[in-house]
Amino acid sequence: MPKNAFYAQSGGVTAVINASAAGVIETARRHPDRIGKVYAGRNGIIGALTEDLIDTSFESPEAIAALRHTPSGAFGSCRYKLKSLEASQAEYERLMEVFRAHDIGYFFYNGGGDSADTCLKVSQLSERAGFSIQAVHVPKTVDNDLPVTDNCPGFGSVAKYIAVSTREASFDVRSMSSTSTRVFVLEVMGRHAGWIAAAGGLASDATTPIPIVILFPEVPFDQERFLARVKENVQRWDYCTVVVSEGTRWPDGRFLAEAGTRDAFGHAQLGGAAPVVAQMVKDAFGYKYHWAVADYLQRSARHLASRTDVEQAYAMGRAAVELALAGASSVMPTIVRESSSPYRWSVGHAELRDVANVEKMMPKEFISADGFGITDACREYLVPLIQGEDYPPYHNGLPAYVTLRNVAVAKKCPEFKLKK
Amino acid sequence: MPKNAFYAQSGGVTAVINASAAGVIETARRHPDRIGKVYAGRNGIIGALTEDLIDTSFESPEAIAALRHTPSGAFGSCRYKLKSLEASQAEYERLMEVFRAHDIGYFFYNGGGDSADTCLKVSQLSERAGFSIQAVHVPKTVDNDLPVTDNCPGFGSVAKYIAVSTREASFDVRSMSSTSTRVFVLEVMGRHAGWIAAAGGLASDATTPIPIVILFPEVPFDQERFLARVKENVQRWDYCTVVVSEGTRWPDGRFLAEAGTRDAFGHAQLGGAAPVVAQMVKDAFGYKYHWAVADYLQRSARHLASRTDVEQAYAMGRAAVELALAGASSVMPTIVRESSSPYRWSVGHAELRDVANVEKMMPKEFISADGFGITDACREYLVPLIQGEDYPPYHNGLPAYVTLRNVAVAKKCPEFKLKK
Repeated sequence: MPKNAFYAQSGGVTAVINASAAGVIETARRHPDRIGKVYAGRNGIIGALTEDLIDTSFESPEAIAALRHTPSGAFGSCRYKLKSLEASQAEYERLMEVFRAHDIGYFFYNGGGDSADTCLKVSQLSERAGFSIQAVHVPKTVDNDLPVTDNCPGFGSVAKYIAVSTREASFDVRSMSSTSTRVFVLEVMGRHAGWIAAAGGLASDATTPIPIVILFPEVPFDQERFLARVKENVQRWDYCTVVVSEGTRWPDGRFLAEAGTRDAFGHAQLGGAAPVVAQMVKDAFGYKYHWAVADYLQRSARHLASRTDVEQAYAMGRAAVELALAGASSVMPTIVRESSSPYRWSVGHAELRDVANVEKMMPKEFISADGFGITDACREYLVPLIQGEDYPPYHNGLPAYVTLRNVAVAKKCPEFKLKK
Repeated sequence: MPKNAFYAQSGGVTAVINASAAGVIETARRHPDRIGKVYAGRNGIIGALTEDLIDTSFESPEAIAALRHTPSGAFGSCRYKLKSLEASQAEYERLMEVFRAHDIGYFFYNGGGDSADTCLKVSQLSERAGFSIQAVHVPKTVDNDLPVTDNCPGFGSVAKYIAVSTREASFDVRSMSSTSTRVFVLEVMGRHAGWIAAAGGLASDATTPIPIVILFPEVPFDQERFLARVKENVQRWDYCTVVVSEGTRWPDGRFLAEAGTRDAFGHAQLGGAAPVVAQMVKDAFGYKYHWAVADYLQRSARHLASRTDVEQAYAMGRAAVELALAGASSVMPTIVRESSSPYRWSVGHAELRDVANVEKMMPKEFISADGFGITDACREYLVPLIQGEDYPPYHNGLPAYVTLRNVAVAKKCPEFKLKK
């Protein structure tokens, strides 16, 4: 009997993580001689710990194919970090117990840096425990912060969403600036790295110039220079668009969003960085403003996914299975950029020890000298990642996203209490 | 020599107002024997007052055709309300002066209730002034609040954007609810009427059920019942989505967004209704939340326009010119619903005296008895309006939206100072 596979989604979900799931499951199904069932963790690794497994063999080929165009985590995801083998010994032992009970020989973990680390530990531990699990990490993060791989599945679609939305909203402000809104502020994700904010800069190009000021988490906020730049743009263009990362900080390290706002009960402020920046501009110059906070809309916007991103997400899932079938473990498939223009990429792989817990920051040379924009090098890197559209099918005016049956696997192990 | 036409965009712009512009200009160009040039007002009616006219004949057929897929106001719009003939006498006389100087025989005004009123007055005044202008209003408003017409161009695309975004973000929350976010709050436009908020309800249907609580401006906010409903949903579904209209109010009439939040300097709060609602849920139950404010993103999202909406917007522009050519004035083309299922509509028209300054509210029977959802009647009304997709062309991963040349017409009149 071939060994079964375990697949789980980890951390914040993306518009294309299910495309990776489809890549894993469809590829596994093509190798019934080598891989038995694919069990998915309900709500990520928690499903493995609580033995809450989903038998994906109950899902039709059509349902699995539909994962390719369905955003977010079809099996549920979780924020639950396993720490070192020592600190989380009970959990790792529990994973071994469940995996052994369900004859798991393959562990596919779809997530970011933390989950790469968990994946590595599962591989190491299974060897020590005397029954080998081939553990392969499938890269995913909207933050684009995994090392080795040229980019992370999930990021390209957020980047496309932010670039398109910034262009569209800028057209709106431009229309209204004579008597109404002068400054539009869009807040985007990215607490540590400005990759997503940088994508806002793509909204402006040679054929469609737009005055955009970007506030990066990498650049300490300089209020005076920022206000001067906004004023300059409004004087020259009649309007200005600001893309602010949620992670933008004052020089003393506080987030902009912590600017001292309190509600009537004295609770710390409710708003984000966008209203703070907008109000600051209003106070300085009286410009009428509008602001938006994209929040989950940006990372779930499968309706506007990048075709490149969808293809790469699927390819990472497929490659993970193929790597395992080729005998590899403690690895992660990667996206290798062969050329930017024309864009060509291939699938490579990295050792998990080189990936786990390493964060890839934006290179300094991607941020313009004034700190408010992106360089040509950044543009050259980003543009390929938003190429192409990959629309979901629609039914009754809405995207036909699949909800899986998610049939539970019968439990075989004693109960396990999660640490809260 | 045939008379020239004047076209202007008024008030908040939409994803499809330029499709109406294309309808006007392309139709006018097919009748060179009857209509001379089409002059557009730069920044709406202000362009007429300051004699800042744009000669659209310099735009290529390709550029005008591209208006059909370009959001926002290609000639600029403005918020500038002309009042009664008495109160705004100088402005109306100025309009006559400019229109006479540029041999304007047709006035096409693309806007909401206020601009319908202006349009009516221009028609009346031109008759009194002894040179007849055929004034035809072209309906436009994301708020869907014009009477007589079954719906307003601009609304269908916002409705589609909010319905799709609500579904996508709900999938995200559903994925994360086991360990992270339980409640997602999306703030949408609609200060007076809940049409846009109602569209959020479309995200949930028989095949894709989603627990959504809608807060309408029409329903005084009942905090206790709201919290109970959110808790009920979280207990049953593990998560809950809230769509809150910016116009939602406490029973005493204050907006939710005015909930007493103050910044460090004592300024009134910066945030909107979404963070207030999210914090309220957190305070009551401790549920982790996320919130988004769609703001301009929702009304500029041409990338996700409703095909029905685009076709109707174009049809209204074309019909406006055809009405004028048929000799009509003081009228507005309308959308007439022939049947909901299958959806069939035709073009009718209304007298402006029946349209001007009348606001169409949501019928009471469109809001569910508990005040937190939409009824089947509402669904039957809304669903056709979001039918079909009409994607713009893309270049380099971004929508190829047109920016017109907007060549100025030589001025012929003395200067005119706008009232501030």
